[in-house]
Amino acid sequence: MDLRVTGVGHTRFGVLDQTLGDLMESAVREAIADAGLTVADIDVAYIANFSDSFVGQCHLPALLSDRLDREIEATRVESACASGGLAFKEAVLALKSGMYRTALVVGVEKMTQTAPADSTRILAGAASPQEIEAGATFPGLFALMARAHFEAHGTSEEQLAAVATKNHANALRNPLAHFQKDISAQDVLASRPVASPLKLLDCSPLSDGAAAVIVTSDPGADGIMLRGIGHASTDIRLYRRPDLASMPSVEIAGQRAYEMAGLSPDDIDVAEIHDCFTIAEVIQTEELGFCARGAGGSFAASGATSMGGRIPLNPSGGLKAKGHPVGATGVSQIVEVVKQLRGVCGDRQVKDAGVGLCCNIGGSGSSAVVSIFSR
Amino acid sequence: MDLRVTGVGHTRFGVLDQTLGDLMESAVREAIADAGLTVADIDVAYIANFSDSFVGQCHLPALLSDRLDREIEATRVESACASGGLAFKEAVLALKSGMYRTALVVGVEKMTQTAPADSTRILAGAASPQEIEAGATFPGLFALMARAHFEAHGTSEEQLAAVATKNHANALRNPLAHFQKDISAQDVLASRPVASPLKLLDCSPLSDGAAAVIVTSDPGADGIMLRGIGHASTDIRLYRRPDLASMPSVEIAGQRAYEMAGLSPDDIDVAEIHDCFTIAEVIQTEELGFCARGAGGSFAASGATSMGGRIPLNPSGGLKAKGHPVGATGVSQIVEVVKQLRGVCGDRQVKDAGVGLCCNIGGSGSSAVVSIFSR
Repeated sequence: MDLRVTGVGHTRFGVLDQTLGDLMESAVREAIADAGLTVADIDVAYIANFSDSFVGQCHLPALLSDRLDREIEATRVESACASGGLAFKEAVLALKSGMYRTALVVGVEKMTQTAPADSTRILAGAASPQEIEAGATFPGLFALMARAHFEAHGTSEEQLAAVATKNHANALRNPLAHFQKDISAQDVLASRPVASPLKLLDCSPLSDGAAAVIVTSDPGADGIMLRGIGHASTDIRLYRRPDLASMPSVEIAGQRAYEMAGLSPDDIDVAEIHDCFTIAEVIQTEELGFCARGAGGSFAASGATSMGGRIPLNPSGGLKAKGHPVGATGVSQIVEVVKQLRGVCGDRQVKDAGVGLCCNIGGSGSSAVVSIFSR
Repeated sequence: MDLRVTGVGHTRFGVLDQTLGDLMESAVREAIADAGLTVADIDVAYIANFSDSFVGQCHLPALLSDRLDREIEATRVESACASGGLAFKEAVLALKSGMYRTALVVGVEKMTQTAPADSTRILAGAASPQEIEAGATFPGLFALMARAHFEAHGTSEEQLAAVATKNHANALRNPLAHFQKDISAQDVLASRPVASPLKLLDCSPLSDGAAAVIVTSDPGADGIMLRGIGHASTDIRLYRRPDLASMPSVEIAGQRAYEMAGLSPDDIDVAEIHDCFTIAEVIQTEELGFCARGAGGSFAASGATSMGGRIPLNPSGGLKAKGHPVGATGVSQIVEVVKQLRGVCGDRQVKDAGVGLCCNIGGSGSSAVVSIFSR
């Protein structure tokens, strides 16, 4: 059964006035219109949202039904920051079951009205109880991974800075990005430490936003084809991971996606990967097979992942500069890859992009969803 | 493709010492053992959990993987109090996709360590933003529904009390129930008002607990067969419902389940339905076709829904007396119906039970999942 993405919708990411429901509805209506459909054409819906602690709102399936003014079979899906990719996977399974023809997937998060200390505590809910009790924060967990990568592979702060400057440069050409601010390597290196060796400009921001896609098994539909999808959950406790500089969930999910697609890393022309921290992009670059293990830092610094390079990563600006409204992120990645494969990205278009990949991770990389699309 | 439930697990419900992870793991390991399987035999997992606000824990897919000490494709599903039934539906879709053979479904909630006022606020997150802002609580919303039912259909407080006394009587024979306390109609009527006409003994409690099932498409498996499943989400705002004494989501989900099963209400021998408040059982009895619209109160008072009656409802004790750990509830209903159809319920066994139904609702009945099983 061929599945195609026929519609995409995406709000601006940033510090926004709209409510959670406003953001969700806005992205959904844009995606439905983009697919040339009406609300009545949707057979089933999946909603990605990370935490009800931000705005105190659960039960988004009924909120979506209310907003669209129709009865619908809607389901909320959560696996920390991988919620968006996972909601897309559940839509794929629903279509493959044969019980539905056209699915809506929307991801949404409203984070910026929450006090930063509370947000840090809420985000820590994606870590293990032991890590939470010990006071771990996500910058701290990713800093451990960075330190391990530095020691094992000689990766440097300068190489991480290359990820940040690239993604900020890309976001300059994305009008929906949270930040449109060019930054230099010196800016990154001089920014204040958050959890050494990670500094402020190694970290993605807290953002509001929503993204939506329409995916269908309609054989007459014209759209971007899903080629493969893979998913994995591993230990939530980072300290149980044999190699702190690795993300086994990404390797496994990637292998599953490549196998289903019948493709290899060399076939990928463009990818959106989960740069919640610069070190995360480096490790995923390796786990997805775009470079050798341990070479992710030098690969980024070489320009291979920049626009015009061997495998442009995060042309949208990534989580780092486009923003990271948690539940929306995985769906936003798919929106960008679909637009790249449609060839409608204007001055951030990756030339001749025929095959694209999305990698969405949760927590410290203990869950991951990888999806591959082609024209 | 035939799907069968081959294993069930269920912790005690109540005020428990175990953590969220302990409860989840306990139910899961029991279900896997009950199915005669090992952890390695599980291909995909679904976790129902309502709110991360109770214990600050998200990312249960990775927590499950950690607890089972293996990589797994796990997804958390939420639609308020319908999360458990919905997680089961997602497992059904995953199996019907053909990508997996054996699925684990676990529902869990840890509520009792939270201060009651905080719990009331967290539970209100299943209502609409407008209702939350107006200070609505779920007892208040269901009280409105009760009042509407009283006015439209002449239903009385005494008839609601019959639901409570029946479910408490049933729970006396369920060693896993939160309450083992026989109550009289007079006890119910004399209990303190919570939101008139609902009194304390019209309301289900806050509970801790977990329940799990194994469902498989393995054609060689021996188990209880899934005959039909239906799901619906409607307006989250109760005040938009044309008839406050109705639950359209239950009627729609029920019709979908009956149609898929090729069965009618007359074929059902036993049912677990969502008695978060006594009025909820009355309305669902009608929406599921067990009695005429408006007749749910007198039907309960007649003894038709008691053990030995025409259609025994909630032999487990229901949410009212077995307890209501929100994420676990929908899965717990399936556990009970499977046990009834296996004929292993001892002195709470419904005689000759051949076909059973579960009805799990979310919020004020704005989402619903109905499933039907047979021997």
